[in-house]
Amino acid sequence: MELTGHSIVGGRPAEGEGTPFHAVEAATGRETGPLFRAATPETVDRACALAEEAFDTFRATDPARRAAFLDAVAQAILDIGDPLIVRCMEESGLPRPRLEGERGRTVGQLRMFAGVLREGSFLDARIDPALPDRQPLPRPDLRLRNVPVGPVAVFGASNFPLAFSVAGGDTASALAAGCPVVAKAHPAHPGTSELVGRAVAGAVAACGLPAGVFSLLFDDGIAVGKRLVSDPRIAAVGFTGSRTGGTALMALAAARPVPIPVYAEMSSINPVILLPEALATRGGAIGKAFVGALTLGSGQFCTNPGLVLAVEGPGLDAFLAGAAQALEGVAAQTMLTPGIHRAYGAGVAALDANEAVTRLAEGQGGGATQGRAVLFATSAAAFLDDHRLAEEVFGAASLVVRCRDLGEVHAVLARLEGQLTAALHLEAGDHEAARALLPLLERRVGRILVNGFGTGVEVGHAMVHGGPYPATSDGRTTSVGSLAIARFLRPVCYQDLPDALLPPELQQANPLEIPRRVDGRAGA
Amino acid sequence: MELTGHSIVGGRPAEGEGTPFHAVEAATGRETGPLFRAATPETVDRACALAEEAFDTFRATDPARRAAFLDAVAQAILDIGDPLIVRCMEESGLPRPRLEGERGRTVGQLRMFAGVLREGSFLDARIDPALPDRQPLPRPDLRLRNVPVGPVAVFGASNFPLAFSVAGGDTASALAAGCPVVAKAHPAHPGTSELVGRAVAGAVAACGLPAGVFSLLFDDGIAVGKRLVSDPRIAAVGFTGSRTGGTALMALAAARPVPIPVYAEMSSINPVILLPEALATRGGAIGKAFVGALTLGSGQFCTNPGLVLAVEGPGLDAFLAGAAQALEGVAAQTMLTPGIHRAYGAGVAALDANEAVTRLAEGQGGGATQGRAVLFATSAAAFLDDHRLAEEVFGAASLVVRCRDLGEVHAVLARLEGQLTAALHLEAGDHEAARALLPLLERRVGRILVNGFGTGVEVGHAMVHGGPYPATSDGRTTSVGSLAIARFLRPVCYQDLPDALLPPELQQANPLEIPRRVDGRAGA
Repeated sequence: MELTGHSIVGGRPAEGEGTPFHAVEAATGRETGPLFRAATPETVDRACALAEEAFDTFRATDPARRAAFLDAVAQAILDIGDPLIVRCMEESGLPRPRLEGERGRTVGQLRMFAGVLREGSFLDARIDPALPDRQPLPRPDLRLRNVPVGPVAVFGASNFPLAFSVAGGDTASALAAGCPVVAKAHPAHPGTSELVGRAVAGAVAACGLPAGVFSLLFDDGIAVGKRLVSDPRIAAVGFTGSRTGGTALMALAAARPVPIPVYAEMSSINPVILLPEALATRGGAIGKAFVGALTLGSGQFCTNPGLVLAVEGPGLDAFLAGAAQALEGVAAQTMLTPGIHRAYGAGVAALDANEAVTRLAEGQGGGATQGRAVLFATSAAAFLDDHRLAEEVFGAASLVVRCRDLGEVHAVLARLEGQLTAALHLEAGDHEAARALLPLLERRVGRILVNGFGTGVEVGHAMVHGGPYPATSDGRTTSVGSLAIARFLRPVCYQDLPDALLPPELQQANPLEIPRRVDGRAGA
Repeated sequence: MELTGHSIVGGRPAEGEGTPFHAVEAATGRETGPLFRAATPETVDRACALAEEAFDTFRATDPARRAAFLDAVAQAILDIGDPLIVRCMEESGLPRPRLEGERGRTVGQLRMFAGVLREGSFLDARIDPALPDRQPLPRPDLRLRNVPVGPVAVFGASNFPLAFSVAGGDTASALAAGCPVVAKAHPAHPGTSELVGRAVAGAVAACGLPAGVFSLLFDDGIAVGKRLVSDPRIAAVGFTGSRTGGTALMALAAARPVPIPVYAEMSSINPVILLPEALATRGGAIGKAFVGALTLGSGQFCTNPGLVLAVEGPGLDAFLAGAAQALEGVAAQTMLTPGIHRAYGAGVAALDANEAVTRLAEGQGGGATQGRAVLFATSAAAFLDDHRLAEEVFGAASLVVRCRDLGEVHAVLARLEGQLTAALHLEAGDHEAARALLPLLERRVGRILVNGFGTGVEVGHAMVHGGPYPATSDGRTTSVGSLAIARFLRPVCYQDLPDALLPPELQQANPLEIPRRVDGRAGA
């Protein structure tokens, strides 16, 4: 499949010659073909106009038909075959097994949402039947269902070129909700994006849906994204990326004549708390496992463990020894883009330059585009004194904060901003200490885990990949798992409508056979 | 019960002498006692500090205990007895039967949320059990529940001194969620607010909850509200009022170092669409019923029908004749405040001054604080040409837009901003026309109703009192009905936690006996 380098609008390569840019091979920093073209302002407008035009038709499709469409998208991605993996390896520097796994995750997400559509609870269908004889006033017949919010702008992320990109979780959940998607490809993997974008557009056509259901826009600058978020036809935004990028989109969306929600997943250092008995029992083993999580994918995960908290003592020493030993054996890995590699280098240099911080251990060195893993340490007092130490260094760097007691652990956690995850390592004897920390963790993070690390985000019904600001822009939501669909829905109430005018979800006979709540109770 | 004129913080009248102001009798415009004192900055800070301090204790109460607390608040409001109604009549100018009804609604809301707590679905408890043998990777045990967001600032509304005020829907849903509330009393009814505030504070004490669970702050300016919304301990805001006020709070909340959600219900003109067969069959009767809805409470409802759309012809003439005749018999009614009365007069004068608008009919004149109902008419072309005609005139004024055909009805609706409600009047022969309008209405409003008017918002499980911006700041939510609790909750995921560390909602034995979803399916 030859790449065209053009945005996809109306199911076809977009006409119009915008600013050109090249894809870059992550490993070499070299430009590679073809020449890509940033979408012109007219192309952005046309994508939004087609999305708006497609919306009423698309949202009126019954959930089973949208489920079949999502399954078709999944199959179309698989049908690209190995060229997708090869191009993605080239652009992202990520190894084959990781990308094959990520493709499986992407396809799995789409299929999970197909299941969500077939099951039907996402509609939150509710019926409060009329009570004509109620005193002092009769009660009308009230019925509620969720409807999609409108066309959604999705920004692909650099660090998951498949699972958080063109057909990633944001796109899958928006399409499942019934929202057309205008995706902005991340310039770190434009070829991968075009391949996936064509697969999605192909599935749109094969399923007989209006072509405006999906468009893909290229740009290696910010003009296209700004125009997209400001377009009055866009009703919501999904984004995974930097805090700077996310907060800029939030400001843009809030300043519109009609403000819209931005679901931005931005930054997190994911504290790991090592409790005393766990450290005493298996400090060295935890250290080794920690290095595995820290260096996975060169540390380029939103859930990468960037902060470790523990009380000083022999257990922590064992952890650090285990971690140092494991780290020594870790090869440097190609980072996603030269820019990310530079930023990582700057972050590591700033920690090295900080007098309160010690470099404890490091992985193997590597080439000009490769990230070397590093483990730093500081004291709780120093951490509390210097807010820069709580900033994310995107990559395989982590900071161990040595605490004098559990009070200091608590104090450090209390000072943190919102996070995606917190991990507790504990044994039975640590339960009391853990119990004292849980209320604080529940306020700071979206997911609390025990004896593991936040990397490896399961796609399921009980997952929360979200968290209080600035981990995300809206801590009431998740961008992974079936609950992600709720971001793109809003409730509408129908009062005293004749059955013939009600949507099928709410008709008396329940033709879609979906779960509905009657008078607030499930099971009718 | 003698009024003190002081804010309530920590369960008692707040010390400190802020700017004084008086309550005003709505009917006479005269000041009445006692002297109220705006909360000082220190008082605002203390209310927020106590709310934050109370949060962890309050949210850890099990739902049944919070339900008992809400029931106690309801009873405490009833126990104030007639002095509450008398004071409220004086301050609001609203008649006794309306306020007795509104008290019933307020108490009913609190009890409904008690029921929501006992039922348990609001927690959205989900369990994806571990799959240790899954290939290629085992699945961890994942459990999700909703937790409250934190202390909530609630702004009382002028037009529902009980049901949307100190212990109204925002307060009831926030307390149900487990969020302490810092309420800002509306200066239009400070005495009513103090009476209700003391009832709530009394219930807090009687139920053995920390006093910081509820505070009440006075101010007849904007300083206290601004300080409150900017306080870092406040996690969300509930507001019902003007568009100016709501958008100012949104801007303030978005500009915080940690932005927070504002749930503002702001303005709506609630289009009424009269379809041809309904008009032909019973135009006059609809006109009469319309005047009942228009003039209820002097038109001071968020859901007041401020816009009527119909195709010209004998049916519309019958409607207008019926409406005009009914309107003649409607007495002028005291408006909520002299300021609201002045604004109503200005809105009516602007319509009178508009050359494209005709005054069709009016109610009886009245005293200096009373609103006279007025019915205006214009053409669809004029309406589409002048955006000022779509602005809300708060009070009993409505504008009939004469359309040449259903296409013009559609064009006018397409031009409208987001609304709380739209009402369709129809007969069986109108179904096709209605079906063509429904997709548009679903995008514009939160509630669609047939053969009725939006006034009279049922408090239930299927109610949506919300709608796209600027009807509300967040069209994904409702401020009335059981779904209102969702505004103050966020999900947290627990991965691989030992049962002993899980909250009761998620423990394997399900000690609270709440509904839970297992692997995405209800009924476990």
